[in-house]
Amino acid sequence: MTHSLDTYFQQHRDAHLAELSDYLRIPSVSAVPEHAGDVRRCAEWTADALRRAGCEHVQVLETEGHPVVYGDWLHAPGKPTVLVYGHYDVQPPDPLELWETPPFEPQLRNNKLYARGATDDKGQLFMYIKLVEAWLRTQGTMPVNVKFCIEGEEEVASLHTPPFIETHRELLAADAVVISDNPMIKKGQPAIMYSLRGLIGVEIEVIAANQDLHSGLYGGGVPNAVHALTELLGSMHRPDGTVAVEGFYDAVLPLSPEERQSLANAGEDEEQLRRELGLSALFGEPGFSFVERTTARPTLEVVSISGGFQGEGIKPIVPGRAVAKIACRLVASQKPEEIEAVLERHIQRHTPAGVQAKMKRSLSGNPYLTPIDHPFMRAAAESYADVYGVKPVFTRGGGSIPVVEVFGRLLDAPVVMMGFGLKEENMHAPNEYFDLDNFDLGLRTLARFWDKLGQTRIGQ
Amino acid sequence: MTHSLDTYFQQHRDAHLAELSDYLRIPSVSAVPEHAGDVRRCAEWTADALRRAGCEHVQVLETEGHPVVYGDWLHAPGKPTVLVYGHYDVQPPDPLELWETPPFEPQLRNNKLYARGATDDKGQLFMYIKLVEAWLRTQGTMPVNVKFCIEGEEEVASLHTPPFIETHRELLAADAVVISDNPMIKKGQPAIMYSLRGLIGVEIEVIAANQDLHSGLYGGGVPNAVHALTELLGSMHRPDGTVAVEGFYDAVLPLSPEERQSLANAGEDEEQLRRELGLSALFGEPGFSFVERTTARPTLEVVSISGGFQGEGIKPIVPGRAVAKIACRLVASQKPEEIEAVLERHIQRHTPAGVQAKMKRSLSGNPYLTPIDHPFMRAAAESYADVYGVKPVFTRGGGSIPVVEVFGRLLDAPVVMMGFGLKEENMHAPNEYFDLDNFDLGLRTLARFWDKLGQTRIGQ
Repeated sequence: MTHSLDTYFQQHRDAHLAELSDYLRIPSVSAVPEHAGDVRRCAEWTADALRRAGCEHVQVLETEGHPVVYGDWLHAPGKPTVLVYGHYDVQPPDPLELWETPPFEPQLRNNKLYARGATDDKGQLFMYIKLVEAWLRTQGTMPVNVKFCIEGEEEVASLHTPPFIETHRELLAADAVVISDNPMIKKGQPAIMYSLRGLIGVEIEVIAANQDLHSGLYGGGVPNAVHALTELLGSMHRPDGTVAVEGFYDAVLPLSPEERQSLANAGEDEEQLRRELGLSALFGEPGFSFVERTTARPTLEVVSISGGFQGEGIKPIVPGRAVAKIACRLVASQKPEEIEAVLERHIQRHTPAGVQAKMKRSLSGNPYLTPIDHPFMRAAAESYADVYGVKPVFTRGGGSIPVVEVFGRLLDAPVVMMGFGLKEENMHAPNEYFDLDNFDLGLRTLARFWDKLGQTRIGQ
Repeated sequence: MTHSLDTYFQQHRDAHLAELSDYLRIPSVSAVPEHAGDVRRCAEWTADALRRAGCEHVQVLETEGHPVVYGDWLHAPGKPTVLVYGHYDVQPPDPLELWETPPFEPQLRNNKLYARGATDDKGQLFMYIKLVEAWLRTQGTMPVNVKFCIEGEEEVASLHTPPFIETHRELLAADAVVISDNPMIKKGQPAIMYSLRGLIGVEIEVIAANQDLHSGLYGGGVPNAVHALTELLGSMHRPDGTVAVEGFYDAVLPLSPEERQSLANAGEDEEQLRRELGLSALFGEPGFSFVERTTARPTLEVVSISGGFQGEGIKPIVPGRAVAKIACRLVASQKPEEIEAVLERHIQRHTPAGVQAKMKRSLSGNPYLTPIDHPFMRAAAESYADVYGVKPVFTRGGGSIPVVEVFGRLLDAPVVMMGFGLKEENMHAPNEYFDLDNFDLGLRTLARFWDKLGQTRIGQ
């Protein structure tokens, strides 16, 4: 049955790519207020695409931020209901001068489609829309019930999406959530992500004197806000890279030998990575591989710091104020509010004499884990194997898709993260692209996945 | 004889203040390229003022930066020659919104003249011009030979002034250099500065990966440039505030008991200072008072730091680059190039694994010390005592006037630093002003000083 879909995908490939290019032309940059109109236009475009594919009840639903696009097809009674989640917003394209072709003028080069959002996430999301279209045009039906929940704030931390999911629980109810927003191991080696790190973001402000002071008149005799901040930040790590904040690792579950083996299979070529990044050495918690450090272990990173005169040259002052922003990636057993609390306690205990330090909470998202032996996970793995000819590797994601945990918790459904992007596709960087080999193979994989899902008895 | 000068100053007070206000209206901000025309106009204004006062050979001399104004009066054969040094440039007025009245529209309030440059240094320099005028108009002669060397780059580290002094050694040759660019202890208590701290400024750049990296994909597995920089900076101080850079204190001479007593007399009310600065505690090298820490001890201050995304909100990246700028204040026995060398060695030894650190030298100025028993110093002290009714305190300056050491060394002449400003006059800050009580008393003090200098036999 899926062979007729394969044929449909082949025959309509040019039209599909043209349509995807239209999608990518819309600069739906959610972080930039000037693009709010483009973001809304993109939501409408997405809704129209769902309607064209055959979805029903298509709506652009308001949130306090950018809207969510909903649509469904629910004519497979007794079959599982799959909720497809994706996002139509994109990262800012800056720095513009590093793009070989403009970010919002899609270009096909070497079977790769270059544009902001090509892989993250419009290109991958678009495949599901075409999947519905192919099933309905070739079969007149689908083996599963399908719902779409497509948001416009993923690149700005999905601020309004969790409350949206909460208030639309019944509308979104499903037996599984499927997301394609994660990369494969490498070209030809698919992966299914079974875990994501959570995230907290906090800002630390250190205040010394009530103004910057002339370093000639005061230097050496008053606290320096930058010194105090660097001392405070320095107290948060040991020289070997481990986090020295008391209680930070308390809730972290040790990795099982099976998990370590699975992560080793997903492993990077550390030497190649080191060279690509221009580093003399990779660096991190001793006793863990790069993949383990970046996916299965929590981290505390100072993501920005600022203090003193920021112009050209040296203005010899004693800075009265300095600010750092910290992002912690959390793993499955850690709770954001607990980590915020241990951070706050650490700051209270380690603030140097003579200055004040304040912590402001900002981003927050839970980590998530889906059991790898769930029937839907097995169905996804078999579909990849059928099309790509190799078994997918089960991986953990180092990044955060904040809503994944919310979907899992509020809908009480497993989340199947099966990506078709590649790490080298420059998501969040200039010259983002989508390798169209994975567009073609991905459509075939998803066709088989839904076919297999339709044969499972779960969730009824 | 000086009484007739006192009368002259009284009778011409309004005219002098009006003339000074014209001077202060010129926004001679040397740091801002857009003000280059204003700086030159200010040099011309200064030259005209010297001519009006009766100086000869007045010239605006070019440098590679802003020009130097020269003028002299050399008709006192057999008498000492005094070189008056000052600067006609001013600090940038930012932040403008904190000024009660615009920085370049002088305002008289409570016998204080408010304007950028009022005390630093136009107001103090202007007194010497009026001193020449008063001597020549009332006496037709002066008890000393006088030269003026007035630069326009003091607020940007006097970059071109030392080479100017070197190439104009003969023109500038003098028996003493007199400078009024330092504050009194407090109102009613004059001070003569016998030492200034030197200064070096360096920039430290830490490079980790060749780009900022997504903290979800790389966080925990690669070096973070901000972490490495804060660790490196942290290694430069002990928690008690002493500098931990090996060799930093090697050349520092211990303070004699006499010097400590003299500095105690010049001492701040530390409790009041603490309150004014909004600090819970002053802070610095144990075993030294605030005054000692800020004038007689060397310091290492991080004057600015920057790394990671500098916009609003938290962008969860691992920064690939971070920069700090450091200013060290040096005391009399330390050499800038030696301190730069120990800093560079420290950076080489303490750069964390996996990153590169580069140090770039920037500012550099030697410390200076004038023996307090020099006859010219005694003449200055007696003149203050005659007019203010109290003996001046001999102090050390915590700041740097880079050219002081150069004058002393190249002209082989003592430098007499007798200030008429007050610490609370907001030099380098909004609402700078000059307390005109010191303008009046200062003119009378300087009249007596030149009278006494004329009676000394030195330098012939």
